[in-house]
Amino acid sequence: MKPIRYGMIGGGKGAFIGGVHRTAAAIAGNWRLVAGALSSTPERARESGEALGLPADRIYGSWAEMLERESALPADERIEAVAIVTPNHQHAPPAIAALEAGFDVIIDKPLADSLANAHAIAEAAARTGRRIAVTHTYTGYPLVKQARRLIAAGDYGPVRRVMVKYTQDWLSRAADLENNKQAAWRVDPAQSGDAGAFGDIGTHAANLVEFITGERIASISAELTMLDGRRIDDDGAAMFRLAGGGKGTLTASQICVGDINDLAISVYCAEAGLHWRQEEPNSLRVGYRDRPTEIWHAGANRAYLASDILAIQRTPGGHPEGYLEAFANIYAAFGAAIRGEAQAGDEPGYATMEDALSGMRFIRASLQSSSQNAAWIDLSQIA
Amino acid sequence: MKPIRYGMIGGGKGAFIGGVHRTAAAIAGNWRLVAGALSSTPERARESGEALGLPADRIYGSWAEMLERESALPADERIEAVAIVTPNHQHAPPAIAALEAGFDVIIDKPLADSLANAHAIAEAAARTGRRIAVTHTYTGYPLVKQARRLIAAGDYGPVRRVMVKYTQDWLSRAADLENNKQAAWRVDPAQSGDAGAFGDIGTHAANLVEFITGERIASISAELTMLDGRRIDDDGAAMFRLAGGGKGTLTASQICVGDINDLAISVYCAEAGLHWRQEEPNSLRVGYRDRPTEIWHAGANRAYLASDILAIQRTPGGHPEGYLEAFANIYAAFGAAIRGEAQAGDEPGYATMEDALSGMRFIRASLQSSSQNAAWIDLSQIA
Amino acid sequence: MKPIRYGMIGGGKGAFIGGVHRTAAAIAGNWRLVAGALSSTPERARESGEALGLPADRIYGSWAEMLERESALPADERIEAVAIVTPNHQHAPPAIAALEAGFDVIIDKPLADSLANAHAIAEAAARTGRRIAVTHTYTGYPLVKQARRLIAAGDYGPVRRVMVKYTQDWLSRAADLENNKQAAWRVDPAQSGDAGAFGDIGTHAANLVEFITGERIASISAELTMLDGRRIDDDGAAMFRLAGGGKGTLTASQICVGDINDLAISVYCAEAGLHWRQEEPNSLRVGYRDRPTEIWHAGANRAYLASDILAIQRTPGGHPEGYLEAFANIYAAFGAAIRGEAQAGDEPGYATMEDALSGMRFIRASLQSSSQNAAWIDLSQIA
Amino acid sequence: MKPIRYGMIGGGKGAFIGGVHRTAAAIAGNWRLVAGALSSTPERARESGEALGLPADRIYGSWAEMLERESALPADERIEAVAIVTPNHQHAPPAIAALEAGFDVIIDKPLADSLANAHAIAEAAARTGRRIAVTHTYTGYPLVKQARRLIAAGDYGPVRRVMVKYTQDWLSRAADLENNKQAAWRVDPAQSGDAGAFGDIGTHAANLVEFITGERIASISAELTMLDGRRIDDDGAAMFRLAGGGKGTLTASQICVGDINDLAISVYCAEAGLHWRQEEPNSLRVGYRDRPTEIWHAGANRAYLASDILAIQRTPGGHPEGYLEAFANIYAAFGAAIRGEAQAGDEPGYATMEDALSGMRFIRASLQSSSQNAAWIDLSQIA
Repeated sequence: MKPIRYGMIGGGKGAFIGGVHRTAAAIAGNWRLVAGALSSTPERARESGEALGLPADRIYGSWAEMLERESALPADERIEAVAIVTPNHQHAPPAIAALEAGFDVIIDKPLADSLANAHAIAEAAARTGRRIAVTHTYTGYPLVKQARRLIAAGDYGPVRRVMVKYTQDWLSRAADLENNKQAAWRVDPAQSGDAGAFGDIGTHAANLVEFITGERIASISAELTMLDGRRIDDDGAAMFRLAGGGKGTLTASQICVGDINDLAISVYCAEAGLHWRQEEPNSLRVGYRDRPTEIWHAGANRAYLASDILAIQRTPGGHPEGYLEAFANIYAAFGAAIRGEAQAGDEPGYATMEDALSGMRFIRASLQSSSQNAAWIDLSQIA
Repeated sequence: MKPIRYGMIGGGKGAFIGGVHRTAAAIAGNWRLVAGALSSTPERARESGEALGLPADRIYGSWAEMLERESALPADERIEAVAIVTPNHQHAPPAIAALEAGFDVIIDKPLADSLANAHAIAEAAARTGRRIAVTHTYTGYPLVKQARRLIAAGDYGPVRRVMVKYTQDWLSRAADLENNKQAAWRVDPAQSGDAGAFGDIGTHAANLVEFITGERIASISAELTMLDGRRIDDDGAAMFRLAGGGKGTLTASQICVGDINDLAISVYCAEAGLHWRQEEPNSLRVGYRDRPTEIWHAGANRAYLASDILAIQRTPGGHPEGYLEAFANIYAAFGAAIRGEAQAGDEPGYATMEDALSGMRFIRASLQSSSQNAAWIDLSQIA
Repeated sequence: MKPIRYGMIGGGKGAFIGGVHRTAAAIAGNWRLVAGALSSTPERARESGEALGLPADRIYGSWAEMLERESALPADERIEAVAIVTPNHQHAPPAIAALEAGFDVIIDKPLADSLANAHAIAEAAARTGRRIAVTHTYTGYPLVKQARRLIAAGDYGPVRRVMVKYTQDWLSRAADLENNKQAAWRVDPAQSGDAGAFGDIGTHAANLVEFITGERIASISAELTMLDGRRIDDDGAAMFRLAGGGKGTLTASQICVGDINDLAISVYCAEAGLHWRQEEPNSLRVGYRDRPTEIWHAGANRAYLASDILAIQRTPGGHPEGYLEAFANIYAAFGAAIRGEAQAGDEPGYATMEDALSGMRFIRASLQSSSQNAAWIDLSQIA
Repeated sequence: MKPIRYGMIGGGKGAFIGGVHRTAAAIAGNWRLVAGALSSTPERARESGEALGLPADRIYGSWAEMLERESALPADERIEAVAIVTPNHQHAPPAIAALEAGFDVIIDKPLADSLANAHAIAEAAARTGRRIAVTHTYTGYPLVKQARRLIAAGDYGPVRRVMVKYTQDWLSRAADLENNKQAAWRVDPAQSGDAGAFGDIGTHAANLVEFITGERIASISAELTMLDGRRIDDDGAAMFRLAGGGKGTLTASQICVGDINDLAISVYCAEAGLHWRQEEPNSLRVGYRDRPTEIWHAGANRAYLASDILAIQRTPGGHPEGYLEAFANIYAAFGAAIRGEAQAGDEPGYATMEDALSGMRFIRASLQSSSQNAAWIDLSQIA
């Protein structure tokens, strides 16, 4: 397969997630960075592009310029897709413009800073027929896919209860908002949207629930809080009900001291309980009523895993793959979809527009519930 | 110290918790079983008493008989205390009668099958001036005490968030209610009270929260559920608010498949997060923002533990103590209190009447909230 | 079953292991302490006996006195067995005398301070026909028994490799020998025998290997060391060969800093690898080539465990039993043997004379090998 | 920094380690694959090169051709280095030729199939003044580097004891040698050298010991074994002595069932014990005598790690990096060395010729010891 030529919007020097996207694409192997509008300040854009070895004529000062100039290149030379890694409030304009210019789009989560903007992107995708992938990284882990597969197989019976948490501690102190580029935009409603922790990491947790259970979150009762002096949530918890009748709890927090990036989920079905934790992603624990607990191991040669899940792993068991490889799996799958390759598994391999919209409704419903003393909010009522 | 002479009410052959109490008392060393009304059926009472080596004349056919006949014995011979290990609905009558007969009482949790009965016991205790201990076993673990001590010391700052779960799987199948003596009374509202899982194990979780944080649960929003065909909850979750402003989630379930007796708690303060899990009780994990995570180990020679916590342990580090030893710590502390020995720590060493009443209010508020679509219930409003 | 009346030799105030034996016997439930020669200094013996509530006339100033005076009591009153918990060099004289006086003997490990004394005890046991149990505590753990059972069943194939370690750190500093009653006798060759760490804890490791594999250690190549200024080993390692052809490594150390009481074993058979660690004794990990790793859980209701192993547990799964309960299992089994009760399992439930002699040969061979630059020593050649 | 242009020798379709090298180089970011002699069969070489997107004129049919033709290219176009990923017996000829052609060389471990060939490579490197790196991957893990740093700092005192194991199970059955490309050359003495497991993975274990402790293995007593019908070791164990006086045990096996790629090491110093396990590489456990055990976490923002160790990590804490990232760290460091960049840490960041020769002596000494009934062999005597 010939690599997808792509341009990146955002992700210049000092940004975190842009580098992650680029490395993930390199590991995936089916993507090649050929252009970039890496910063909204031209000088930084240029420096960043040079550091990446981009040719000078494909380092652009703005995404608008990139889309226009790339469109003018010969078809077998110009970019085929863009990766958008800007702060949330700068997702919709370049995404819509890129779709309209005929490019496929891969975009960092959450899809947008507001539900309205998310819908606008969705509409543009539908109108143009272009593809969109949203990087809910954690569903790229092989054992997350295996957990989904085990539940989908039906032997474990229906999902009854879910516990999910995504907790960090990098905003645990009042001073954390000063002098921190990561923090700055994430906690500014104008850039991040109205939600803080629930938008930044709560959506990952919600997406993981929906991915593994194969069910949407139907309604939610949430209470979001924040340290004194902050404008958006840095901590919160919720009870939720799944479309299939199961119940769950979700905690998302950036102030849980000692937790680094602790995304962990337990899904209890009628005949098994499945447990996965992102910080040790290469094992999946499955508990049963009447027999020993099982530890499933990741690895390209663990023959008990589904064959398509084996196929996406790069190393045999015991050679741990991590966050970058999970991220690479998203790129690899989206690249394959762009190339029209057959999909082996039961899901696309990346979060779709519908997944992303569900995440946006989750954010909106959580905020609304919290403002109503944790009243139950039906996600289907979120316009 | 001369051992406390005690009589047991309930706990005959086939019962589980009675044997646990007796072994705990034996390990504690400051208790001696001298009498028993071990079953409500006289034949079983007699057989059970003989199997325990009780003298025939102190094996009684009913607790009323035991209280009456023991009261008539010389002061240095008769029982000094009773241990009540009957189903919940049979706690109040013997407890009140024993208090009125001048005996101290140790009683399995929860205190009673209803809040009204709990208040009646409390009133009797106040009226008679006798002592009551309720066996919330899990606070007997040394590292639970150490966690409380670390938070109380203040260096970690205020409690911000708590996650607690107590999950089991022994009722995960419809058929589990048949032919199971343990299940039979626990799921019968007439014997157990209106609450199932929340009464049986949710109270333990709530008690653990209050013990470690040193704060009461102020209000709760709960949703309790049950498998088809059942009359009381076997599963549920709640959000709660602590008196000091912290927030939390609590899950209690008897249908979480693969979880055996999985009581686990995380308490996040402003400067540390503490984690303890009952199934591996001899380590306490403490996470920090800026330095390595710590694993505190149990053991009578781990000099970094508080001296009174060292003193209650029987073996040096690495020789694991378990559930029975934790239970024994409750007996040992209550025995010492009865003997008037000075208390070294910052808490009595056993759950008091006020702790137990808080547990009863927790149950009542949870049921009430669940019946009102998880509305917030203020525990101080529970009469 | 009527409890076994026993007297204790050693175990007065300030001693550690005596209290462990007494608590274990109390948990077992089929033993009753009725007499004691608890210290070689009469005053301490008296005080210790009183603290335990022994009647004044059965607190003896020496074990010789106890054996003589108890023998003179009526058969249904006098002790039936003695528990010997003195330092190693004081095992043989009271053990032989007790056997000759017609009492069964339970004795702390290792059997004796020298192989010659061990043989003398063995000879006395054979001559008198009395029973002896040696408390190799760790084989009392339910999951150790289950591991043995799984291997004995044969499905896993022959044992190929063993790794065992027993490491502690309480002698890691030069100063540890001063002011430490535990250390004092253990590191004095005159009291402990010629071996230090290998005698004190290496024997436990060797016994565990032989118990789980069902094979004797056939030969050994060992290197023992010690900190400057010490007279007996505080650290060492060995390679060994099992009678069945498997190979292994063993490390025993009292200077491995940070390891508290870390006895851990891995046994690899042709089709499975079994792993158990004493500090978390309630799970047994079993790894396979082609399927997920299994975690077997302890508990009186884990139906996948052998029925006789279920029967010795006191609590259902998830209520951890620990060191004292494992120790109690030794007492319970020896008590049952004394009472002539049928044995359900495939082993007596306690270390026999032959097991103990094998341990003594292990010590002797290790010392001999170490003195010969780790030459291989055949244990069958140890006289 | 401009990327290093490199050509690869070996690593065509169906090979495992070649792909790992290429992905590692891509993650490192400072390497660019521009040429290849990927297979000894020209057709496979061509197909493999095309699949990697190499230009047709830089896909070579043999390494000799590649070295010759690349040397003829302009200096700013031709390769600067070669990566050698062929079976062990094909290391020396291309390595020596590449050095002599003026290229730097990165070579998969072990350095060569025999000590003689290793010396020949070393001599060529010395003669030509070119650089060589050997990919002992596991020293690329950040927390392995931190462990080394902690010990080197001296606060923990001298190393007293080491336990290291590297165990796998992929050769546990007789049939494993058939139809397995990986197995085929690894177990053929003509291709792999005289050592099997000790050469393939034992060297990694030995290298890890020397890297973390900062000391060479001085002497070794080893016993290597193999399943019936095999020609080289698939399993073995050793005792060893470090140059500084510490002692250790090492197990290397390809038949330890259930162990996937289980490289694990414990290093005990006078005041701390350090524990690291490759399958969960993002935590380092450090035990102390008098305070809680510490868990050190990996992550580019864990400020307690050394600054140069922070700098090589790509993601903040809790976003696990794995085997490929560790491998990438080797490439990154060697690339920096080639570019003449200053080295921040206390070691080059890759295994040097001297490290690799020590590994070759380890293999040779192990084989020799095993053939002499585990006699002690002094590594300095290995010519």
